[in-house]
Amino acid sequence: MSSEEIAKAAKIAFGESQLIPSTERVKALETIRQQLERQKDEILAANVEDLKAARLEVEAGRMSESLLSRLDLSRGDKWDSMLQGILDVASLPDPTGVVSYASELDDDLELYRVSCPIGVLLVIFEARPEVVVNIAALAIKSGNAAILKGGKESNRTTSLLSNAISTGLAQTAVPEKYIQTVQTRDEVASLLKLDQYIDLVIPRGSKDLVRNIQNNTRIPVMGHADGICSVYLDQQADEEKSVRIVVDSKINYPSACNAVEALVIHESLLQTIWPAVAQALLRENVRLLCDPPTLSALQSLSPLPPNLDSHVRASTAGDYGTEHGSLVLSVVTVPSLQSALQFINSHSSHHTDSIVTESDEAASIFCRAVDSAGTFINASTRFADGFRYGFGTEVGISTGRIHARGPVGLEGLVIYKYMMKSKDKKGHIVGEFGMGVGKKHFKHRSINAKAVPF
Amino acid sequence: MSSEEIAKAAKIAFGESQLIPSTERVKALETIRQQLERQKDEILAANVEDLKAARLEVEAGRMSESLLSRLDLSRGDKWDSMLQGILDVASLPDPTGVVSYASELDDDLELYRVSCPIGVLLVIFEARPEVVVNIAALAIKSGNAAILKGGKESNRTTSLLSNAISTGLAQTAVPEKYIQTVQTRDEVASLLKLDQYIDLVIPRGSKDLVRNIQNNTRIPVMGHADGICSVYLDQQADEEKSVRIVVDSKINYPSACNAVEALVIHESLLQTIWPAVAQALLRENVRLLCDPPTLSALQSLSPLPPNLDSHVRASTAGDYGTEHGSLVLSVVTVPSLQSALQFINSHSSHHTDSIVTESDEAASIFCRAVDSAGTFINASTRFADGFRYGFGTEVGISTGRIHARGPVGLEGLVIYKYMMKSKDKKGHIVGEFGMGVGKKHFKHRSINAKAVPF
Repeated sequence: MSSEEIAKAAKIAFGESQLIPSTERVKALETIRQQLERQKDEILAANVEDLKAARLEVEAGRMSESLLSRLDLSRGDKWDSMLQGILDVASLPDPTGVVSYASELDDDLELYRVSCPIGVLLVIFEARPEVVVNIAALAIKSGNAAILKGGKESNRTTSLLSNAISTGLAQTAVPEKYIQTVQTRDEVASLLKLDQYIDLVIPRGSKDLVRNIQNNTRIPVMGHADGICSVYLDQQADEEKSVRIVVDSKINYPSACNAVEALVIHESLLQTIWPAVAQALLRENVRLLCDPPTLSALQSLSPLPPNLDSHVRASTAGDYGTEHGSLVLSVVTVPSLQSALQFINSHSSHHTDSIVTESDEAASIFCRAVDSAGTFINASTRFADGFRYGFGTEVGISTGRIHARGPVGLEGLVIYKYMMKSKDKKGHIVGEFGMGVGKKHFKHRSINAKAVPF
Repeated sequence: MSSEEIAKAAKIAFGESQLIPSTERVKALETIRQQLERQKDEILAANVEDLKAARLEVEAGRMSESLLSRLDLSRGDKWDSMLQGILDVASLPDPTGVVSYASELDDDLELYRVSCPIGVLLVIFEARPEVVVNIAALAIKSGNAAILKGGKESNRTTSLLSNAISTGLAQTAVPEKYIQTVQTRDEVASLLKLDQYIDLVIPRGSKDLVRNIQNNTRIPVMGHADGICSVYLDQQADEEKSVRIVVDSKINYPSACNAVEALVIHESLLQTIWPAVAQALLRENVRLLCDPPTLSALQSLSPLPPNLDSHVRASTAGDYGTEHGSLVLSVVTVPSLQSALQFINSHSSHHTDSIVTESDEAASIFCRAVDSAGTFINASTRFADGFRYGFGTEVGISTGRIHARGPVGLEGLVIYKYMMKSKDKKGHIVGEFGMGVGKKHFKHRSINAKAVPF
């Protein structure tokens, strides 16, 4: 099938699914789980082939060992947790059909704003083949059709996973073409032009991938960009909280987008809390890229930290705009809360930033003035996560500023439409409303409704 | 100032405004109203100059009379209603600071999702100079900075309006650069590249304007596209409702985007309701572009409608994808509700579509299966409007499928951020949570809160 045929088939499948009750979508998820279980041996055999090919790439120096390990679908409980994930998504509340505004505009004229799927999603991701199954489950649960493109290194696995999903769907009320996959970059390039069929692009991968897609499509992009998160130690920071929060934000999962990359320190802490924080970080083998005041504060410690020479160096300007993604932390000193806000707003990626302080006033200012998706008080940046926020699962984290921001759950895959019903015996027309004599006026009486009653 | 300096100044002004309470934004609106009143003579004099220049353009055949009339700021009560509009916006509920999700993730760890402004808006519109004031009021009320570009034919007027707004702002807590205007297309072209400063583009104008902007920026675009709305007369339509709703949808304001452009008729009505509807439309001087069944039904009427020859002709395929914007209506026959749904979903612009029916089942199917921002039962398409929906005012109507859909009120100019606070005596870290022995589990207890308590 050509890209255009695939996109058109997705749009048709989406249209056909509009009258299918959400209970059928949940049943379809169970059927897909069973079909995957049935094709398990075949899929894992294909996965072994992908791994063999990837091993050659690693040996030739063209692929990293960590990428290779993410390809492996039979490692640990990966297969089982992939299947369990389908059931977890199935059991989440239905994000569609929820009324968020209801008003009686006039006697017998009712308006309802009700959540509904967006349409056709194009999801582009890298490496981990189980993402096909995760995204398929999220799309089906939220009533969206989806076209998926995984990394080329997992093509054998993803095409079989996709095949099992289609085989499963063929046994259900949900259209078979609801979930489709494509394999090549050329197909993606063609799909990005088809805004008459595709409604939202979700790239899950590097900043370059996201930016490249944004530059080459007029379809809206929900970007899950990298994270340059910071922790600010305020003049009124508590030492124990400072140490615990900075260390956790850095070492709990250094390659995650919600790990801290920059530590911003009020200058009054240079001889007090900063040495304690630095020593705790150095004990965890974190490398520190320090500005002159924080560097000299460490150099004048007695005794000197044992790994000072190997793990501490002077920072460069570029370090503060870098997502290290490893046990590396940029450190900067500021003279005031105001300076901290300016530093964070101009250097962070507007993902998640945290303040450590005992001052309610500083905390309140920080939360409002820091222009990021998450602003935290005395808590690790690592809490920025859909599961931790209580969404059950997440589509990704958005640093965009419309539609959805921060960890995006199923709610990020729906929009709304307005349904209106006249029960008047002559129907409702606008010409009867207005300012003149005998004209009607809008009543706008709020209706208390959780679902549309018609 | 260069485009980059303007965009940067807007972002800085936005940043500076984050700690200003919303009451100050409301005060700023009143100050702007007073300043406009003070500069009234000067502004209206500039408007006379714009009108003189436009008159020459009309005489040279380069501008329409209707565009000219929309430029005129002293016609009727336009000036007064422009100023009243500022107060109307000022009195709407504050769209910011509203909590839409609140959860206690753990003892003493609270999460709040709270609405906040988007950032810097770039609004591009045509002709009517008072839009500068409308948009400035909406932006200030919702806490967004804005850069505005009007039509070149109103440059003298809009630059003075903008000047009065800045002069007004300079007397308030809201930064002076909160609202800026640019005059040229070149400046707009440069601004569309500055996604580091500008967060949302709102084009208010022709489909070509919207598409051109979508093709030339990676900034999200909230498109207020044209409307190809339809009315479907179902097999179980009532005659009086059919006549009233079709006529109102067409003639109440033919150039509006929510006017009907296509009439879809169930074939069982060809000899009954269709002639009644057609005669009512012809009495209102509506031209009918008919498919063969509806055409021949009219030609076999006795007596023939008096303006049959002048006002009725056979339709072409292109007519069904055209926004007539005048007293012209395309008409098509379908054999079933299913065919009507297919026709509407493939021909409408997904703005607003209405069904006339006495069948609850058909009505319910129509509302769910028609993939448009508004799906109405026995009501005119002209009800699709922010004021009529009860939003007080509207930013425009979006036919996009993310962020905001249909008439967009102030709610469409906000997004949200997540604020989190730990009250624990040691702060909160992620490393304490997990599956192992002694690990904490998330509690996710819902909090009932309308505003953030810190």
